[in-house]
Amino acid sequence: MPKILVTRNVGPDASSILSTCGLEVIINPSDAEPTREWVLKHLADPEVLAACIMHSQGSDKVDKEFLDACNPNLKVISTFSVGYDHIDVKAANAKGIKVGHTPGVLSDAVADITAMLVLMTMRRVEEGIQLIKSGGWPLLPWAPFVMCGPSIGSPNLTIGFLGFGRISHETLKRLLAFTNTSAPPSVLYLSSRRRENQDQIDADFSEQFGVSVRRAEKEEIAEQSDVVIVLCDLNPSTKDLVNKEFLRTMKKTAVLVNCARGPVVNSEDLAEALEQGEIFGAGLDVITGEPNISPDHPLVKAKNCVVIPHMGSGDVDTRKKMAELCVRNGINGAKGEHLLAEVKV
Amino acid sequence: MPKILVTRNVGPDASSILSTCGLEVIINPSDAEPTREWVLKHLADPEVLAACIMHSQGSDKVDKEFLDACNPNLKVISTFSVGYDHIDVKAANAKGIKVGHTPGVLSDAVADITAMLVLMTMRRVEEGIQLIKSGGWPLLPWAPFVMCGPSIGSPNLTIGFLGFGRISHETLKRLLAFTNTSAPPSVLYLSSRRRENQDQIDADFSEQFGVSVRRAEKEEIAEQSDVVIVLCDLNPSTKDLVNKEFLRTMKKTAVLVNCARGPVVNSEDLAEALEQGEIFGAGLDVITGEPNISPDHPLVKAKNCVVIPHMGSGDVDTRKKMAELCVRNGINGAKGEHLLAEVKV
Repeated sequence: MPKILVTRNVGPDASSILSTCGLEVIINPSDAEPTREWVLKHLADPEVLAACIMHSQGSDKVDKEFLDACNPNLKVISTFSVGYDHIDVKAANAKGIKVGHTPGVLSDAVADITAMLVLMTMRRVEEGIQLIKSGGWPLLPWAPFVMCGPSIGSPNLTIGFLGFGRISHETLKRLLAFTNTSAPPSVLYLSSRRRENQDQIDADFSEQFGVSVRRAEKEEIAEQSDVVIVLCDLNPSTKDLVNKEFLRTMKKTAVLVNCARGPVVNSEDLAEALEQGEIFGAGLDVITGEPNISPDHPLVKAKNCVVIPHMGSGDVDTRKKMAELCVRNGINGAKGEHLLAEVKV
Repeated sequence: MPKILVTRNVGPDASSILSTCGLEVIINPSDAEPTREWVLKHLADPEVLAACIMHSQGSDKVDKEFLDACNPNLKVISTFSVGYDHIDVKAANAKGIKVGHTPGVLSDAVADITAMLVLMTMRRVEEGIQLIKSGGWPLLPWAPFVMCGPSIGSPNLTIGFLGFGRISHETLKRLLAFTNTSAPPSVLYLSSRRRENQDQIDADFSEQFGVSVRRAEKEEIAEQSDVVIVLCDLNPSTKDLVNKEFLRTMKKTAVLVNCARGPVVNSEDLAEALEQGEIFGAGLDVITGEPNISPDHPLVKAKNCVVIPHMGSGDVDTRKKMAELCVRNGINGAKGEHLLAEVKV
C-alpha cells in the first residue's frame, strides 16, 4: 500500500485530511524531532511515495545523505515552511522528486511579528523588560527623556526593505497604521534585480500603499533608512547582505529587524555595530546557528537587541493552514497530481 | 522677579521656551528626582507663580503637604503627564491654583505601545525571550504547534476596551491593520455612563472605524472579548475594575493589556488568573506600586505576563511635545492667561 511519511505531529485538522487520503500514514509518534535514523529508515521503504518534513537543519535536512536514502519511488518532499534553504532542491528535482512548500499562508503571522519587533526595537522594550527583571526599576531616576527611543510616528520616516515580497507588503500595510499621516514615510526596497518596467512597478506599489515606494540599491537603503527590515530569501547572494559595511553606513538612530533567515545578517558584525552604537538597536526573530544559541551569545546579551526564538509564523491559525498545505502537497505529489505550491528553482 | 519652578530637566526645546518667557526659571539641576525638601522650599518662595511637575507619587505628589507649602501667589501647577491621579485637583482649585496637563500629544505613542503589547502577549514573546535567556532554545523540540499563541488575524475577533478615549481610538486604528479583513473584528467598549444618544454615537464610531463598535457593560466585555485593553482614567469607580470576578468571566484564550494606570487591574487577582490559566496572558505597561517592583513580583515572574516599565509615552518626539505643553501651561498660568490644557474636575 502506498505510504506517506510525516516527521511531526501536524495537529488534528491536518491529521484528519491524512486519515482519509488513501495513503498509509507513517507519523513520528512523539511531538518532537525524530532521529535521523528513523527518518532515513522510512525513506528507504519502497512504498513511501511522499515525505512531509519540517524546516530543520537536523533530521529533516534534505542533503545528499537524505536523497541517497530515498527509495526510487519517492515523488515529493513537502516542507512545513515557506523557506527551503534546508533542501537541496536541484538535487531532489534531478532525482525526479518534486519539492512543495507553504508560501502565502504565513505572510500575515510573520508580518505581525515583524511590525511588533520594529516597535519593540525602537522603543527599547528589551531594555525595559531586563531593567525590571534585574531589580533596576526602583532605582531608575524618572526624567522626561529617560528610556526614550525614536518614534515610529516621526515625520518623513524612511523604511527600507531587503526583499519586497508578500510578507514585506503585509508588514508595510501594518506599519502604515503607526506612521505619520501629515508627513508620511517613504519606502525603499531591494529586489534581486532591476526590471525593465521598474518605474511602472514602483508607481503601482506607490499607488497601492499610498506612499512613495521605490526600488533602490543596498547602499542607499542603508544610508537613508530609519528602519531596515530584512525579509528576503536566504541564498548565496543574500548571505551576509547586512555586514560590517552595511551597518556602518546605517544611521546611528536607525533600527534593524530580521525576520528572514539568520545568515542574511552577519552576527559578529551586528554585535559589534550594536556595541559601538553604530545603530540604535536590532530585533531578531532569526539568528545564525539557531536553535543552538546560548545565553552568552553577544546578541542575546546586548541590551539594545531583542532576540526571539523564530516565532514568526507561530500562531495557531497559521500553523493549521501550513499543516494543511504541507500534507496536501504531500498527498497530491504521491498521487502524481500538481502540488498546491511547488518550489521552482 | 516672578519665577517658575521646574522639577526636572525638560530638554533643550522646552528649555529654550522657558529662557525667553520673562520668568526666572528655577530648575532642578540634576536629571533625576529632586528631594521633597527642595521642591517644598522653592514652592514657599512668594515669587514662584508656577510649578511644572512630573507624574510622580514622590517629591512631585500634590497632596496636603505640597499645597500647604505653596506660597499664596502660586497660580498654576502644570504636570508633565496626561494623568493627574498624583494631584488633589479639587484642593488645588480651592486655593485658586489651576492645574494643567498634557493630553492629546501622547496618544500616538501610548497607542503604539498598546498595540505592541497586544501582539507580544498573544504571541508569547516574553516566554520566547526568557526561553533564550535561560538557555532553553537548543532543547526546545520543534513541532508545528510548539510556542504558538492565538492569532490577531483570527476571524470575528472581539476587542474590548475599558475606556474609549483618544488613546483607545488610536490603538484600534493600529490593530485594524492586523485583524482579519474577510471576517472583521467587532469592538465593545466601556464608558463611564450610557448617553441618551448612545445608539447614534455607536453608529458614528462604527462608521469611523469600519467595524461594529458598541458600548457594553463590563460583564459582556469580559465574557465576549478575545483581547481586553485597559485605557481608562484611574478614579474610585475604576480602581480594581479588572478583579477576580472580571478575570474569571474572561475567555481562557483571551489576553489582557493595561496601559492606563496600575490599580485599575488588581495585581493579586491577575497573578492568580494567570497561574490558574483563567486567561491566556497579560501585557502591562503599568502596575500597582511602580516603580517599586522587585524581580520577585508574581506578575514579573509569570511566564505568560510581560511587564514593561511605564514606557507608553516614551518616544523622543512625544516627550518633546509633552515638555513644550507642560512649560507653556506653566508660563500661561503664571501670566494669568488661559492654559492650553487645563484639568477640569
